[in-house]
Amino acid sequence: MSDDVKQIEVAMIGAGPSALAAAVYTSRENIQTVLFEKGVIGGLAAITDKVDNYPGFDEGIEGMELAQKLQNQAERFGAVIELAEVSNIERNESGRIKLETSSGVYEAGAALIATGSDYKKIGVPGEQEYYGRGVHYCATCDGAFYKDKKLVVVGGGNSAAQESLFLTRFASEIVILIRSDWRASEVLVEEVEAHEKIKVIKHVTTQEIVGNEEKKVNKVLAKNTETDEQIEIETDGVFVFVGLLPNTQFLAHTDIELDEIGFIKTDAGLRTSVEGVFASGDVRSGATMQIASAVGEGATAALKIREYLEDQARQATSSV
Amino acid sequence: MSDDVKQIEVAMIGAGPSALAAAVYTSRENIQTVLFEKGVIGGLAAITDKVDNYPGFDEGIEGMELAQKLQNQAERFGAVIELAEVSNIERNESGRIKLETSSGVYEAGAALIATGSDYKKIGVPGEQEYYGRGVHYCATCDGAFYKDKKLVVVGGGNSAAQESLFLTRFASEIVILIRSDWRASEVLVEEVEAHEKIKVIKHVTTQEIVGNEEKKVNKVLAKNTETDEQIEIETDGVFVFVGLLPNTQFLAHTDIELDEIGFIKTDAGLRTSVEGVFASGDVRSGATMQIASAVGEGATAALKIREYLEDQARQATSSV
Repeated sequence: MSDDVKQIEVAMIGAGPSALAAAVYTSRENIQTVLFEKGVIGGLAAITDKVDNYPGFDEGIEGMELAQKLQNQAERFGAVIELAEVSNIERNESGRIKLETSSGVYEAGAALIATGSDYKKIGVPGEQEYYGRGVHYCATCDGAFYKDKKLVVVGGGNSAAQESLFLTRFASEIVILIRSDWRASEVLVEEVEAHEKIKVIKHVTTQEIVGNEEKKVNKVLAKNTETDEQIEIETDGVFVFVGLLPNTQFLAHTDIELDEIGFIKTDAGLRTSVEGVFASGDVRSGATMQIASAVGEGATAALKIREYLEDQARQATSSV
Repeated sequence: MSDDVKQIEVAMIGAGPSALAAAVYTSRENIQTVLFEKGVIGGLAAITDKVDNYPGFDEGIEGMELAQKLQNQAERFGAVIELAEVSNIERNESGRIKLETSSGVYEAGAALIATGSDYKKIGVPGEQEYYGRGVHYCATCDGAFYKDKKLVVVGGGNSAAQESLFLTRFASEIVILIRSDWRASEVLVEEVEAHEKIKVIKHVTTQEIVGNEEKKVNKVLAKNTETDEQIEIETDGVFVFVGLLPNTQFLAHTDIELDEIGFIKTDAGLRTSVEGVFASGDVRSGATMQIASAVGEGATAALKIREYLEDQARQATSSV
């Protein structure tokens, strides 16, 4: 083994809730664990205003605080977080997992990919400013904050249709803004169009999300793309459903199998197509984009990784 | 519909961490949810002394407190817990899920089975008294509390062998007591027998787990079944690995498919073999017996149940 390759037991790519939960498990079991994070420790959770449905915090918890607790817990047991970007990952002939990172080359007995996903943005003024405080991307997470409120939904695909119907459980009135026309299934479109709480406006582009003096979203500015007419819609919040971007660009030149959108395919044991490499949380094909699910999968992945390492060690011994 | 059948949206069988997490989700989404619990609210978690690895509680939390928080959170959003036993569950011709319970007959749009599993006991004096405070059944959960301590392991199967090897990460000395002989795989037995920290005693029955004045376990009394010789082993704790009992006896006369041990088989969407009936947590085939995993699966199951109910409603509308 080359001197400048750092040898570790388990490498985790990402330091969001799923990786941190996995690291709580592995490091508590004295398995040396290094997490590689290129962005924010705590992932999407860390930039979420209030998390109301993470089980165990009965009055809800701020996303930042939950992220900090997950980090503290993983570090308490000895996990190490490296602020570095991973550019490639591959399995050696010897069976070890080699990672090229911005802080050098590592080799691990096993690796977990838990880099999460990002919500696609529409890229208009106000979108970032009001993120989590009037601008949302997850109805399951934040819909319940809008009981008897007015909402604007941006998007025209299946998820926009489905999530709008879901939001009618809470909101009193929903306006859906579609850039051109529906790209959702017919049966969904019919149900949406027939819903008394929902109004659909097609051929509009959202131009700005505007707030009042109290820094609360109070309207959306849009433009009809056919007539250039300016539209102003009063609202208490905006939900954007224009897609997900799994953070798997760095896997482009690897053998790790992705689905058509770019999520990582796994089996029931959270194994990827490359032996010794596991995946959990929002980056996984079939993920729910829920912190609880990501954390649960992280715990499960940690147990599967431990089993895998034990099997490898046993095989190494018996083949001597 | 008969008058004395109570109609609800979602029925959950069990009120442990997995069902409570699912109920946080469904009830927060205004889906009427009733949980049926015949024993302890909070399940095994509620009778666990300290939970050190549930992600988010960075200093650990008492099992009872975690259970209470999960209950509070589910109830805050409107979930109802019925203290009743479910004796049968089946899918009606109309597609509704019918439950016979000790508090009457219910019909639900969908059901979640999250009744958990119990660890098999050896049934000796001291076992119940020191449960969670010297007597343990889960090495992943409690092994880390025994750094540089002496342990006794009871059991001779694969899990006893595997978990003993795992416990050598923490303990200084482990004595394994086997009632007759090994029933574990040869490669595991070889590794255990060769381990410098492990001593194996065969043909012994455990007779009592004894504590000192401070109510801490300090020895195990056993008897050689061939010579009747009495054996006394000093120890700081006892781990019992003699098997799991999934709580699925009430499913004996249903169409819900179980594996050879009695765990419920599910697909990747946590669906059982009966449409509209889902399963999550420790009762599921492949479960990890970890609160984090059970909670994560509960959240995932809730989303799958919501999707299922929405699909059912859509089909009902379009077939009118």
